[in-house]
Amino acid sequence: MANPVRVTVTGAAGQIGYALLFRIASGEMLGKDVAIELQLLEIPPAMDALRGVVMELEDCAFPLVKKVVATDVVEEAFEGSECALLVGSRPRGPGMERKDLLEANGAIFTVQGKALSDHADRNVKVLVVGNPANTNCFIAMNSAPNLSAANFSAMTRLDQNRAVAQLANKTSSAVEDIKDLAIWGNHSATMFPNLYEAKVGGKSATDIVDQSWYEDQFLPAIQQRGAAIISARGSSSAASAANAAIEHMHDWVHGTDEITSMAIPSEGQYGITEGLIFSYPVRIIDNEIRVESGISLNEFAAGRIKVTENELLEERDAVAPLLN
Amino acid sequence: MANPVRVTVTGAAGQIGYALLFRIASGEMLGKDVAIELQLLEIPPAMDALRGVVMELEDCAFPLVKKVVATDVVEEAFEGSECALLVGSRPRGPGMERKDLLEANGAIFTVQGKALSDHADRNVKVLVVGNPANTNCFIAMNSAPNLSAANFSAMTRLDQNRAVAQLANKTSSAVEDIKDLAIWGNHSATMFPNLYEAKVGGKSATDIVDQSWYEDQFLPAIQQRGAAIISARGSSSAASAANAAIEHMHDWVHGTDEITSMAIPSEGQYGITEGLIFSYPVRIIDNEIRVESGISLNEFAAGRIKVTENELLEERDAVAPLLN
Repeated sequence: MANPVRVTVTGAAGQIGYALLFRIASGEMLGKDVAIELQLLEIPPAMDALRGVVMELEDCAFPLVKKVVATDVVEEAFEGSECALLVGSRPRGPGMERKDLLEANGAIFTVQGKALSDHADRNVKVLVVGNPANTNCFIAMNSAPNLSAANFSAMTRLDQNRAVAQLANKTSSAVEDIKDLAIWGNHSATMFPNLYEAKVGGKSATDIVDQSWYEDQFLPAIQQRGAAIISARGSSSAASAANAAIEHMHDWVHGTDEITSMAIPSEGQYGITEGLIFSYPVRIIDNEIRVESGISLNEFAAGRIKVTENELLEERDAVAPLLN
Repeated sequence: MANPVRVTVTGAAGQIGYALLFRIASGEMLGKDVAIELQLLEIPPAMDALRGVVMELEDCAFPLVKKVVATDVVEEAFEGSECALLVGSRPRGPGMERKDLLEANGAIFTVQGKALSDHADRNVKVLVVGNPANTNCFIAMNSAPNLSAANFSAMTRLDQNRAVAQLANKTSSAVEDIKDLAIWGNHSATMFPNLYEAKVGGKSATDIVDQSWYEDQFLPAIQQRGAAIISARGSSSAASAANAAIEHMHDWVHGTDEITSMAIPSEGQYGITEGLIFSYPVRIIDNEIRVESGISLNEFAAGRIKVTENELLEERDAVAPLLN
């Protein structure tokens, strides 16, 4: 067995962290034959809870877990990290001003970006889950001068999975018969699931569902899914977000020839402003995230993509003062 | 792909249920190629929360999950069930009288036993996780005249995993180097982890650790582990219990030549009263749980086993009035 892979999880004692760690530890993310060391970061008030989580990890006697570090020291959490799942963040609370939100996350992700830059493995794969995920990733990336942009990503896989499930349900098909359904743009209410490229059992999705369902039911359902779950469960999506994080990282590490969604630093593909963390349809070939090329975007799709790009540009401009 | 396996989980919206379902759905319990139908049972006040959990299961787009039923009707939850994880129970709360505890669980497990008897697959594998697990299992088994005793089990795998982790830690060895460490008796403070048979890297555990550590530190640590986790986390073990349930059921379904712990209806092995749900060292060969034979028990072990048997006898006598 090779050296253990160091996996960092921030916000490790939170609900998503709790749903995530035991699946990582059982080998679902990196593989059943890959030994790991877990480096878990929490804020000081959550360290007791984190110690409880570590005890439960011990109580599973996972053979793949060679070491667990629980810390509130950012540099320690990212030391030699090869996979970093940035789950902890300050999401927007009720009555929270945009300025407060951005400042709170700026404080978290500038520090974590710098620690990644100075301490992580040079090939670290960073996945930002904590919201606002794209812009938190943007902040971290721009705080990490010693890493490449290719080290960074943010999660839109949960949106993709939600879209796949809704389309499968609508068309009475199995989820595995839905292909090429990718999310474009920001992980927010503006994100755009592109049905024009999606296939249902090999057929074009938009030949099966009509435009009014797409616009009036499908898009709002995906965009408001998080709120619907909070309303039913009384707390926000945790296990489904953790599942998406595992799938995102699994595909990044192992590669996939199937189209999936990842928010990555744009290199200008499809006219998107360079440097924005933008979700595209991608495949992972030879350990590299490759944006699918040659997709033609009709007026509706292009318009929606412009909206989500504009939102990301506004967020970028709003956090600019935090970056130097 | 064969017909989906119907998997019942009771208490499905609780903390253990939430930690369990997504791992079952991803194929960790029955296998990555085994399609399943989930039949989820909750009490009426938890049905909204359960609907939220079902939405999150949908949002994972798990290819193996062919159907999810969420119900508060016991018969529906057990219809055709091939794997039944009985997680929901009424554990002992602060100030709760023993009589109230037994009556509350009697009401749950007589009904569920009867529903299993009348509706489940004839080869259903029943695992009781909800505490008091052994006696809840005893109640269910004795309420299920149309099923065999061999259909029933209760969980001591979490105790085993805790014991393995503590022994590995004490001896600075890897968890996979600990073998043959089984739990005897009741899943309660009287349970007996038998170190005399355990091996550490092929050597007898009791040649490595001394008797005072065994009695004064190891046994209390395992017995009080649940309380220690509640104290740290602020809530009881969920993910580690879910993990143990997955491992128990995985081994039962797939078989294992390694010794593991399961609480099963005693056939009198090692002098234990027949019919008690008693945890033994077992292997699963040819789809059958076989109690390891030929273990010699010294005075200390025999004494501890007598204590845990006596506790189970008392629990049996206390619930007798509930069983006609």
